[in-house]
Amino acid sequence: MSDPWQECMDHCVEVTNKAGQMIREALQKDIAVMQKSSPVDLVTETDQKVEQLIISSIKEKYPAHSFIGEESVAAGAPSVLTDNPTWIIDPIDGTTNFVHRYCLSRGFIEFGIVYSCIEDKMYTARKGKGAFCNGDPIKVSGQEDISQSMVLTEMNFHKDPGHFKTMMANIENILTIPVHGIRSPGSAAVNMCLVACGAADAYYHMGIHCWDMAGGAAVVTEAGGVIMDTSGGPFDLMSRRLIVASSRAIAQRVAKEITEFPVGRDDTDG
Amino acid sequence: MSDPWQECMDHCVEVTNKAGQMIREALQKDIAVMQKSSPVDLVTETDQKVEQLIISSIKEKYPAHSFIGEESVAAGAPSVLTDNPTWIIDPIDGTTNFVHRYCLSRGFIEFGIVYSCIEDKMYTARKGKGAFCNGDPIKVSGQEDISQSMVLTEMNFHKDPGHFKTMMANIENILTIPVHGIRSPGSAAVNMCLVACGAADAYYHMGIHCWDMAGGAAVVTEAGGVIMDTSGGPFDLMSRRLIVASSRAIAQRVAKEITEFPVGRDDTDG
Repeated sequence: MSDPWQECMDHCVEVTNKAGQMIREALQKDIAVMQKSSPVDLVTETDQKVEQLIISSIKEKYPAHSFIGEESVAAGAPSVLTDNPTWIIDPIDGTTNFVHRYCLSRGFIEFGIVYSCIEDKMYTARKGKGAFCNGDPIKVSGQEDISQSMVLTEMNFHKDPGHFKTMMANIENILTIPVHGIRSPGSAAVNMCLVACGAADAYYHMGIHCWDMAGGAAVVTEAGGVIMDTSGGPFDLMSRRLIVASSRAIAQRVAKEITEFPVGRDDTDG
Repeated sequence: MSDPWQECMDHCVEVTNKAGQMIREALQKDIAVMQKSSPVDLVTETDQKVEQLIISSIKEKYPAHSFIGEESVAAGAPSVLTDNPTWIIDPIDGTTNFVHRYCLSRGFIEFGIVYSCIEDKMYTARKGKGAFCNGDPIKVSGQEDISQSMVLTEMNFHKDPGHFKTMMANIENILTIPVHGIRSPGSAAVNMCLVACGAADAYYHMGIHCWDMAGGAAVVTEAGGVIMDTSGGPFDLMSRRLIVASSRAIAQRVAKEITEFPVGRDDTDG
């Protein structure tokens, strides 16, 4: 029996593999760049070619679908989720770790794909069908004890002194529990996948965008993880706030320890 | 002409490759473990076999050499550097990222080796002969502008509230410069190699041990990087304090922004 959403996901994985190969070939040419988290020069060369390949290939096959992404938002398009099949997409993130992220939503998240070029790891998940890394099933650690947990978050400078102090105080609070440690690998999508495969037990972040979270949300959920808002309430893809964890107990404890600061919304403050 | 120190380094690389293969084969058996930063169960299985292989293979070939390492220190041996060829060694670090580190010192550092199993990256450097990743030459970014820099450090909980506050204040000070970002990948040796190959521009840390720094010190120096004490003075392998950077300007700026807290020494407080 034909399964249009599986076909749609397979098509996206195939296109991403092609794009990944282009990037990896470009990276091979320069060992120095291959080592880098921010291969800026390479991006300017290969970036647009790859982005073009991915977006046009999806649009061509699915002309009736909607798109939300950094590029479309920068061009003034609204970030509103409807029941129309909508791609939330960041085809190439050259400023951090060369990660591709996709998610197809039909009101709910149908599938998510995260591809990390440097590591050549393709994380895929489809609603109700499990999560995979390079085709092998993955699952969260299942850790329930926060004191045994590796927690991920990302730090950045905020011009608003109140936000900045709150962000730092949150890190201090989590460390003081104490947890096993806090790490900051640098990519929201990869952080979510690290929780999904059990390499870390929790990840929280305020101030990211829907295209940072969308692909990873499906992966972590299908891997048996818990996803919620930083308030402890239900996850909201447009809220710019996120906790994912290996268990409800750990997600709730993280929510309890951190204080929110205003970050706006993707669907109203774009 | 025979070059005994090159032979010695080649022997160590060969043994490390063998050990790496053992670990990678063990990892292949369990995709879940392969994803992990802390494959604890695997460590308990493979750990001692690998450690045994490496240390005995080096000791057998070089019976007159001295050894300093986590294991020997735990067994009560002193950590004192003499002119006798001395291996500073952490043959397997299973608690973080499965990294092997070696360094041979003869009063100065003769060579350093850092091997990251998960990534299968072998970083090598010999005094005056350059630094390499999997045989390809690497060099630091050469970045001189701190505001364009990616800075690495690691965060952990300290029971002493003064130390903990100072550690957090240091992160806040660096972020406020502002820098491009701070990341915490989780391994001191890998962090040094990330600076060596230009993926990051600086790394600072207080409270690490000589076996965390020794292998990476040669790699970063031979890659054209700068290594100094957190005070801004000369690097001291036994001081448990470290700044490495892509340039003197950045190292000095980091030293200026951070406040030291007492961490003891490896050669007196063992």
